Amino acid sequence: MLIKNIDLVPINGKDEVIRNTNIYIKDNEIIHIGEIRDDIEVERIIDGKHKIAMPGLINSHTHIGMSLLRNFADDLPLHDWLTKKIWPTEANLTSRDVYWGSLLSMVEMIQGGTTAFCDMYFFMDEVGNGLEESGMRGVLTRGLIEDEGAKRKLDETRELFKNYHGKGNGRIKVMVAPHAPYTCSPDFLKESFKLAKELNTGIHIHLSETRKEVEDSFNLHGKSPIRHVYDLGLLDIHTIGAHCVHVDDDDIEIIKEKGLIPVNNPGSNLKLASGFAPIDKMLKKGIPVALGTDGSSSNNNLNMFEEINLASIVNKAVNLDAVSVPAIEALKMGTINGAKALDLEKEIGSIELGKKADLILIDTDKPHLYPHHNIISSLAYGVQASDVDTVIVDGKIIMEKREIKTLDVEKIKFMAEKHAKDLVNR
Amino acid sequence: MLIKNIDLVPINGKDEVIRNTNIYIKDNEIIHIGEIRDDIEVERIIDGKHKIAMPGLINSHTHIGMSLLRNFADDLPLHDWLTKKIWPTEANLTSRDVYWGSLLSMVEMIQGGTTAFCDMYFFMDEVGNGLEESGMRGVLTRGLIEDEGAKRKLDETRELFKNYHGKGNGRIKVMVAPHAPYTCSPDFLKESFKLAKELNTGIHIHLSETRKEVEDSFNLHGKSPIRHVYDLGLLDIHTIGAHCVHVDDDDIEIIKEKGLIPVNNPGSNLKLASGFAPIDKMLKKGIPVALGTDGSSSNNNLNMFEEINLASIVNKAVNLDAVSVPAIEALKMGTINGAKALDLEKEIGSIELGKKADLILIDTDKPHLYPHHNIISSLAYGVQASDVDTVIVDGKIIMEKREIKTLDVEKIKFMAEKHAKDLVNR
Repeated sequence: MLIKNIDLVPINGKDEVIRNTNIYIKDNEIIHIGEIRDDIEVERIIDGKHKIAMPGLINSHTHIGMSLLRNFADDLPLHDWLTKKIWPTEANLTSRDVYWGSLLSMVEMIQGGTTAFCDMYFFMDEVGNGLEESGMRGVLTRGLIEDEGAKRKLDETRELFKNYHGKGNGRIKVMVAPHAPYTCSPDFLKESFKLAKELNTGIHIHLSETRKEVEDSFNLHGKSPIRHVYDLGLLDIHTIGAHCVHVDDDDIEIIKEKGLIPVNNPGSNLKLASGFAPIDKMLKKGIPVALGTDGSSSNNNLNMFEEINLASIVNKAVNLDAVSVPAIEALKMGTINGAKALDLEKEIGSIELGKKADLILIDTDKPHLYPHHNIISSLAYGVQASDVDTVIVDGKIIMEKREIKTLDVEKIKFMAEKHAKDLVNR
Repeated sequence: MLIKNIDLVPINGKDEVIRNTNIYIKDNEIIHIGEIRDDIEVERIIDGKHKIAMPGLINSHTHIGMSLLRNFADDLPLHDWLTKKIWPTEANLTSRDVYWGSLLSMVEMIQGGTTAFCDMYFFMDEVGNGLEESGMRGVLTRGLIEDEGAKRKLDETRELFKNYHGKGNGRIKVMVAPHAPYTCSPDFLKESFKLAKELNTGIHIHLSETRKEVEDSFNLHGKSPIRHVYDLGLLDIHTIGAHCVHVDDDDIEIIKEKGLIPVNNPGSNLKLASGFAPIDKMLKKGIPVALGTDGSSSNNNLNMFEEINLASIVNKAVNLDAVSVPAIEALKMGTINGAKALDLEKEIGSIELGKKADLILIDTDKPHLYPHHNIISSLAYGVQASDVDTVIVDGKIIMEKREIKTLDVEKIKFMAEKHAKDLVNR
């Protein structure tokens, strides 16, 4: 496949824009970027006029089955939201609910330019099935809240790994997801760690999302959640730390030392009043902070361009510094840093020779993107989810001219609505 | 005209959603809401299936000619941004630049569901001409920065008023716009006030946007910018106060006492690192804070649904209170409070009997808006500019199924690009 005459934002570490170039894809790999090559046989040409090519966006922390609860409970204190609305309703979720909710989320993510995600939820085999169908790339993690069924949940993770890890031409990965230090005992955290070691995979865990959680940790363990998991030896393998909002300098040192990848979820952190993560500070220390949407019942969407914009502008105001988290850094958070979070840096996150072809084309022929002064600014501060024209994952076109090729969108909308209505009336 | 079988969010003070109703419009007025009426003759029916009707959004503070500088200068300290990039380039602006830039902005605003705006810029007759063509509603204000040409600028405002106030079936209004207390001397501020009195119109002024500006005011006048204009007697007529970010309790008392309408511009305040306005506090005191986008070179778009979302979620995090600025309050900020800002409360801002028909229809058949649990949440937290299907202003359809009826969008994109390129190379 050849994408011809296109402006390219490769996110290749040089912060460059390559004007009017050509991208060749063979199977699932990017094999040439530059001048037209007559020696490469081409079966398909995409015209890059009025388009920008950039790496597919990576949603590094989400709960995609929760889309059935979108716009269901809002403007509530966090505790009431969880205990009165979300948890009681989630207790009634069936595997089919999660299947249709997850597919709805995948449709939304594809339409917004997201090509890969890291999901933490349950009934994860259903998410895995949807993921195979959708053509997206993803990391599946079965959320492990410690309760009487904790042992079974660990077994489910082992099963999930056996059945899905590496599936879909390697598009699917499985990690281990102890939910958080405040929902898992030190022993159970260590059990989870052991399992991840055994499977030779990574960990996905919530860390320091709210101020209360951090205060509780100090009261209970005499230290922060991050220091706590560090002291337990949990950070010796690849770890995705969702949120990391209330982190102090000691936490940041640990994050840096251990290569923990924090995932900032600005939309959710704002809406749930969790607070402001010190993104600029972490980025300046060389920590590749990634980006996520969290679940769409606390956001209320899965729009990574919105998160990129928020990551940049919110941190400017917090730091009273208009130069904080510039456009290019926010774009990295949503692409290459996400690849690092998912432990897929060698495969995706940038458009470079030898990497897998996970990329998106943005339609710049929209009034709100005129005039065309600066492409990087435009991507971070102007582009909307609806401007994504084409989505390619693993070398396959899964959306073209906004039409999704892999999923039956009308059926998914209908089934998601039906399951959502059933669920809240159960 | 009849809009049939539609879900309606009227913003009528009762915070209600009216399901499956019918809206009758005659000429430019809403004449009936409720059951089907066979005695009303209808020439046109719009099917409300999968749609929400709500009042058109009101952008209460913007500089629409600045769209030519969108994505031109970003990630700079405010002072450098203004003095090195924006002001030198603006000095080269011609009236035709402003005409095409303003039309580009109107296209963007219509496509995002904005039906009315309050603009502060120069070459305002060009904006007035564009406004007449577009079919939108607007308040024109010639920005008055005091310099050697100050007298002439006041005369321009008087001319503008004479030529445009009341034009377009009353869609166009003119107010007087002394730029800010830090760019206008007390004497010049009083001159502006006298002119507004003489014309029996309102004032549009920047107030307390940045911390520095407030500190300077204390150093120079021994008081805040708001106390300063209050003491000068400037707040005795209708006043739109753009920004009001750094306001203290004394300022808030003045705002309340004088009925000054503050306009919050959350996107711009974040991106330019101006800070966080105490919106929740002002709303709770009964102050009808309105919303604006500011210019698109500091935003970088004119997307009022984005501002509504930001007004709600940013204030939750600032106050560490997930109940701050709930969805319905943010929607009011973007509609009825905007009508109050523009001194048009009796005419627009809600969908009620006898009001002018300025309304928009949202297409809810989008994956990111499924499932349909709560319409109010959906409008504040989920709806995107691109979900606006139909825009009606003064009883006329100016956009239908996303096609703008009043303007030549292709020509405007072309001419705006051309003028922008010329401008930055001048």
